[in-house]
Amino acid sequence: MEHIAQKAKTAAINLAAADTAAKNRALAAIARALEAEKDTILAANQADLERSTREALAAPLLKRLRFDAPKIAEACEGIASLIGLADPVGATQAATELDDHLLLYRVSRPIGVIGVIFESRPDALVQISCLCLKSGNAVLLKGGREAGETNRVLADIIMRASREAGMPDGWLNLMETRADVAAMLAMDAHIDLIIPRGSNEFVRYIMDHTRIPVLGHADGICHVYIDRDADPAMARRIAVDSKTQYVAVCNAAETFLVHAGMAEALLPPLMEDLTARGVEIRGCERTAAIVAAKPATEEDWRTEYLDLVVSIRVVDSLDAAVDHINRYGSGHTDVIVTADRARALRFMDHVDTADVFVNCSSRFSDGFRFGLGAEVGISTNKIHARGPVGLEGLLIYQWRLVGDGQIVADYSGPDGRSFSHRRLDKHFEI
Amino acid sequence: MEHIAQKAKTAAINLAAADTAAKNRALAAIARALEAEKDTILAANQADLERSTREALAAPLLKRLRFDAPKIAEACEGIASLIGLADPVGATQAATELDDHLLLYRVSRPIGVIGVIFESRPDALVQISCLCLKSGNAVLLKGGREAGETNRVLADIIMRASREAGMPDGWLNLMETRADVAAMLAMDAHIDLIIPRGSNEFVRYIMDHTRIPVLGHADGICHVYIDRDADPAMARRIAVDSKTQYVAVCNAAETFLVHAGMAEALLPPLMEDLTARGVEIRGCERTAAIVAAKPATEEDWRTEYLDLVVSIRVVDSLDAAVDHINRYGSGHTDVIVTADRARALRFMDHVDTADVFVNCSSRFSDGFRFGLGAEVGISTNKIHARGPVGLEGLLIYQWRLVGDGQIVADYSGPDGRSFSHRRLDKHFEI
Repeated sequence: MEHIAQKAKTAAINLAAADTAAKNRALAAIARALEAEKDTILAANQADLERSTREALAAPLLKRLRFDAPKIAEACEGIASLIGLADPVGATQAATELDDHLLLYRVSRPIGVIGVIFESRPDALVQISCLCLKSGNAVLLKGGREAGETNRVLADIIMRASREAGMPDGWLNLMETRADVAAMLAMDAHIDLIIPRGSNEFVRYIMDHTRIPVLGHADGICHVYIDRDADPAMARRIAVDSKTQYVAVCNAAETFLVHAGMAEALLPPLMEDLTARGVEIRGCERTAAIVAAKPATEEDWRTEYLDLVVSIRVVDSLDAAVDHINRYGSGHTDVIVTADRARALRFMDHVDTADVFVNCSSRFSDGFRFGLGAEVGISTNKIHARGPVGLEGLLIYQWRLVGDGQIVADYSGPDGRSFSHRRLDKHFEI
Repeated sequence: MEHIAQKAKTAAINLAAADTAAKNRALAAIARALEAEKDTILAANQADLERSTREALAAPLLKRLRFDAPKIAEACEGIASLIGLADPVGATQAATELDDHLLLYRVSRPIGVIGVIFESRPDALVQISCLCLKSGNAVLLKGGREAGETNRVLADIIMRASREAGMPDGWLNLMETRADVAAMLAMDAHIDLIIPRGSNEFVRYIMDHTRIPVLGHADGICHVYIDRDADPAMARRIAVDSKTQYVAVCNAAETFLVHAGMAEALLPPLMEDLTARGVEIRGCERTAAIVAAKPATEEDWRTEYLDLVVSIRVVDSLDAAVDHINRYGSGHTDVIVTADRARALRFMDHVDTADVFVNCSSRFSDGFRFGLGAEVGISTNKIHARGPVGLEGLLIYQWRLVGDGQIVADYSGPDGRSFSHRRLDKHFEI
């Protein structure tokens, strides 16, 4: 494992220096190979599906495990769109003249070696490895056991096709055992970032067991706050979509906060919308005084149901809604429904969350919907990258200072030269 | 302590929403108060100096502890320049139309609550707290015991002046004991980032004892690589400045790598330059065959001397220099001296370091010299911020999506609406 990680580090150095055309050629080769070896992929996936059916894997997980011909075509379309995106590596983010012929550039660079631990969907393997390739990062991947055969075939195809297209050996590695994961978490000398994708408990476990920075989120406790002057019909549509459009995902709403001035008019019809969709309601006392609701406990405000359950609280003010969100939320996605632009701005300025939405559903919180191309995950970290993370989140920068012999001694003391610090629009060149 | 951190979190929410003029007024008030209460500051610093002299504090530390009238004036000048900088909070970093009347903005926001643990220089307290104020972050500060009186007076002046100018209570807190530091490191629910400034061992200790992200660097093992076609006179000047201009700091060079084609011509005069300045030389076998040098051990390549000692290695190629740096370096600052632009680019593209310099001294690696205004530290992290960290490194962003009732159900299924994902140049507005 140490050997694999060291090799990945060496590969990362070379991949960081790979030019755009070479990376795009490798991506195209991967897409061609996935199409060409479709039958092998389908057979491997069939074996995974049969074994998992025998082992009585739950139906939703079986569904996520399936990687059929349309999914392969979709993955190849994803690769085509990735080829179309600009190369994020090597962009000049800032340029400053420090003095005559002493020019400072901040240039985007890959992070290095990224460890990704993901759930059963084999499409994630293709998506994540191609994002890493385009952004010049080496990647260590560990998929779910259920998808073992499919992942092995996919990783093998991607490695072969990209190597033949000139990418460095060892840039992609598939890990298969729990012991591999434990070893990976200990390798802070070789791995620069861990991205875990899975359950709350799983992500927390990873965070607690490594010194390597972890990008991602554990909880997704998202709120919809319905302000005193929201349009009631809009509020109901947004609340229902945020809660029920897909309950099992992190950007689904778990709590509705309703301004006291709106509660009597809104709660009864909203209640109808929700019960018609089988949603169980847990409310604060003021909610229960208006509609039939099980009493919500302190624990409810902290719970990510991921199910047809919602907690509802009546609040006296926008600030009270903000306080509730900052106290119980997870900094993932929070929504305000209001017709008052100034109040929307106040909400956005005070809610400490990655994604803050006005008059639209929490379910829009997603890398594809945001137009990021794809996402490696959604981050509730406040360091580096926040919210849906696409190509840009896989980059850091490097400061490049180009002179013609300058030394600091010449800039020291009372007679020393001084710096011009003039911002330049020019791009990095040498 | 828990109470202080909670209060800081609340203050951070309000400070994040403070407008530019209010923050600049508070900064101006702080500068005025520092001038007005100069005598109190000088008396407190005198007490610290006297106690530390009695306790036989080392001379360089005593020098760093001194905070006299010129230092106060310099701190006030620093504040004036900070007032002149643009407010980094609220800048639109990207804008995308997802669909008609559904606009996505990425807007810069403060990180939140920042814990800073710093060494004896009281000027650091003023600089760091003002950087935090301008960037909208609350701060918990722990200074060195030697500067206890000075720090208490300074923190008190800054708190009073900024509170009277309308900044939220509790945005700045001074901690005084080791127990406070331990408590701080455990408070990952309230503190978003730790910035430790101090010795290698100290920074490592902090990194090993907290789940909170740590920004900074432990080692500063910086290299100067002298390429085969470097200008010899320039190479000597840069090597000497990088090593000797100030030996005790992280951006001083510790190792010179010399291309084999250059070694015989360069090493003898370079040796003269270095011995004239009292530098001890530890060299590889090939170095020792050309000049008198103690043999360098494997340990030497990994050592940050912070002293008048340098290790020298003769390498056969640019790639060998890169491999040495990627193996032994700390990703802080590495320099190439060469007349060949293509080789300089190859070096920059392959060296995995925060600051990579061509034909100038490693000592330029500094927030002030880079024109960042000031710095909270230098980061060798590859997540979030790298190299000298100024205002921008104290920021994260928030995604703001503004619609007029859009729900995800309308974008789902075969007949769903599709996204336009049109990049916009407009700034965030509501």
